[in-house]
Amino acid sequence: MDRRQFTGSVAGAFVGAVVSRSPIAPFTASSMRHGGLDANRLNANIKALSAFGANPQGGVSRVAYSDFDRAGRAYVTDLMRAAGLDARVDFAGNIFGRRAGTDAALKPIVFGSHVDSVPDGGNFDGTVGSLSAIEVAQSLAEGRVRTRHPIEVVVWANEEGGLYGSRSVSGQLKAPELDNRTWSGTTVAEGMTFLGGAPSRIDEVRRQHGDIAAYIELHIEQGGTLERDAINIGVVEGIVGIRRWDVTVTGMQNHAGTTPMDQRHDAMLAAARFVDMVNRVVRAEPGRQVGTVGRLEAFPGAPNVIPGRVVCTLELRDVDASKTQRIFDAIAGEAKHVGEANGTTFDFKASHEDAPALSDPAIRAIIDDAAKELKLTTRHMPSGAGHDAQAMAQLGPMGMIFVPSIGGISHSPKEFSTASDIERGARVLMGAVLRADTLA
Amino acid sequence: MDRRQFTGSVAGAFVGAVVSRSPIAPFTASSMRHGGLDANRLNANIKALSAFGANPQGGVSRVAYSDFDRAGRAYVTDLMRAAGLDARVDFAGNIFGRRAGTDAALKPIVFGSHVDSVPDGGNFDGTVGSLSAIEVAQSLAEGRVRTRHPIEVVVWANEEGGLYGSRSVSGQLKAPELDNRTWSGTTVAEGMTFLGGAPSRIDEVRRQHGDIAAYIELHIEQGGTLERDAINIGVVEGIVGIRRWDVTVTGMQNHAGTTPMDQRHDAMLAAARFVDMVNRVVRAEPGRQVGTVGRLEAFPGAPNVIPGRVVCTLELRDVDASKTQRIFDAIAGEAKHVGEANGTTFDFKASHEDAPALSDPAIRAIIDDAAKELKLTTRHMPSGAGHDAQAMAQLGPMGMIFVPSIGGISHSPKEFSTASDIERGARVLMGAVLRADTLA
Repeated sequence: MDRRQFTGSVAGAFVGAVVSRSPIAPFTASSMRHGGLDANRLNANIKALSAFGANPQGGVSRVAYSDFDRAGRAYVTDLMRAAGLDARVDFAGNIFGRRAGTDAALKPIVFGSHVDSVPDGGNFDGTVGSLSAIEVAQSLAEGRVRTRHPIEVVVWANEEGGLYGSRSVSGQLKAPELDNRTWSGTTVAEGMTFLGGAPSRIDEVRRQHGDIAAYIELHIEQGGTLERDAINIGVVEGIVGIRRWDVTVTGMQNHAGTTPMDQRHDAMLAAARFVDMVNRVVRAEPGRQVGTVGRLEAFPGAPNVIPGRVVCTLELRDVDASKTQRIFDAIAGEAKHVGEANGTTFDFKASHEDAPALSDPAIRAIIDDAAKELKLTTRHMPSGAGHDAQAMAQLGPMGMIFVPSIGGISHSPKEFSTASDIERGARVLMGAVLRADTLA
Repeated sequence: MDRRQFTGSVAGAFVGAVVSRSPIAPFTASSMRHGGLDANRLNANIKALSAFGANPQGGVSRVAYSDFDRAGRAYVTDLMRAAGLDARVDFAGNIFGRRAGTDAALKPIVFGSHVDSVPDGGNFDGTVGSLSAIEVAQSLAEGRVRTRHPIEVVVWANEEGGLYGSRSVSGQLKAPELDNRTWSGTTVAEGMTFLGGAPSRIDEVRRQHGDIAAYIELHIEQGGTLERDAINIGVVEGIVGIRRWDVTVTGMQNHAGTTPMDQRHDAMLAAARFVDMVNRVVRAEPGRQVGTVGRLEAFPGAPNVIPGRVVCTLELRDVDASKTQRIFDAIAGEAKHVGEANGTTFDFKASHEDAPALSDPAIRAIIDDAAKELKLTTRHMPSGAGHDAQAMAQLGPMGMIFVPSIGGISHSPKEFSTASDIERGARVLMGAVLRADTLA
């Protein structure tokens, strides 16, 4: 795509859309940009969805495949249908809401996000992008705008657990992963069935490269840089790769009262030194790489027993896969020494891997243009978080729009984005979808 | 008691017992020592009890108040009744099996142990002492030996969780502790009820100082010193005090991909440095004190979330309470600095305390004499583990008999004591009980 196509007049962005004028909701390019999208309705819908799985102390626990997840998805499915979309659940549990375009030969423009959360998470991660996508579809319907391409609003299943829905569609999901245990307590396969999917037919949801015209996802930044530097919109250059391991530390379980300190093979002590070492190794070289131990369990887990085994997670993220590998090698090497110091051993089992994914330059340009048209400031930046967009990058041109996260807090009840920032993001999404519709 | 009373002839030890001769099981002092006690039956009973809560990979999870605990207790209650004991469950859930003595004015000699285990524990901790006590009673009955004192074989409830049964009897249990959550998932009060007790009437099980003539407990050492130095019997000088805290580390929960390493308030990292520091501080001065972090949980506990909170246990043990306090003060002081380094805070909440308890010199002498009579080697030693005996020390003269633990391993499926060592311990228990019966 030639980026120059989108500079100049606003109307140029809508060249591909057929506008049906209506006495009730007369559509103009200007109304579509400023009034055709109902920001109050959007923010009210975000608030309404937050009730599903709301925690008493704030935030939400709407983990994938839980009762709350299913109830929240029923709520957004109703919104999709009210927006005139033909909503259905695919075999992987993803919800697709489709509306046909005017040119049957064209591939769909896909946009959306997810509504599942981490345990004890916030009300904006995924939700902002999902409900903004529905709002865009609703506004297009009310504005009688018919796109050339089909549009597909998508709400992905189980993003937080590891992009299970989108990786099913991109063909990256491996069969054994269906047996993985999830936060809801079920396996992935059981969870897909619970949401109305059919894991035995998962191959049928797979699409091939070229099956989509574009994929665009609006999301909160989940970091603090946009707010700190007062930038309205982040234009995502690429998404970091994520690798995860289950780390097992094996020592010797023994009585905490009768085993002298110098005769212990304490798996907890070795695990503690491991956590400290990971932090040191990850920070040892410059860059934006991160490393986290988020879960740790000691066995048997009694105050009066020296743990004989500890299982913890290790997660590394960077846009450069070779750097991630180099850091992991250093960690594994140092863990050996940590274990040798008190007679324990370390074992690493890879549990998850998302390759880094770059966004499409043309989609980046669309997003940038749409933002500038609205007189918003932009910054091109990587995404430290994983997103369904990285799976979609396998199928066609991908782009992401970030809006500021206050204080950079995410995966927390304190996660927050302002209504104004969400409105700006949704309007840029609208502009980007309409601009993408001009693509061949 | 004058120790010299027990030197000299074996028969001297039995001076207080009325021996009923029988054609079926003729009793002599010699038969009581060598054949009257059926070591094969004892070891078979230990094996049979190990089936209740047996883990597939070995060892046992028969935590107090669980279904397995209740079933195991029913099994030992049957053994007690078969031994001619009047077995009943008290309001705290302890099982007492009593047989009257010939002198109604005398207080009982109490001996026994417990049958509950830690999660993923072994088959000898508590079990050896409980079943040996029953075997002693059974052999006395079969030998038609009637003691002067009443004898009470006791199987304490919930030893591993913190001596709940014995501290009820000694009056040391505080009412709020009845609400404590236990490994079985129930509260202590619910657990006592589950075992046939009545926590609302717990005050009625309390005994006063002087209500018992003696308390004697046989137990595995749970450390490796007796086996290492080829000593048959440990004569316990005293039991270490135990203090426990719940430690809460509070940081800032955040997204593991978007939060730069230098902007994290990672509760897991602070907790890890705490575990390492505890090890260093406890080892900083000479002595047998120990410190353990046996349980640790991070919240929310997801691989892609920086933990905002970690809760772990801290346990310190020593025979010198002032030393334990000094070490705790040092740990709490250093924890403050650990927290300051990454913007986290530490909070300590005392959860449990057992005061150190010394055994009675006369009972120690009885045990030593009984062992020497059997030509066994002895060592006087402290107990690093807590035991119900320390609660009983509040009520009268207390003593404990240790037998070797192979490899010093305990609170583990690998816990093991040989059948020969168990037999030796049971015989010393028999000798000690009969000697104690000569006390006024």
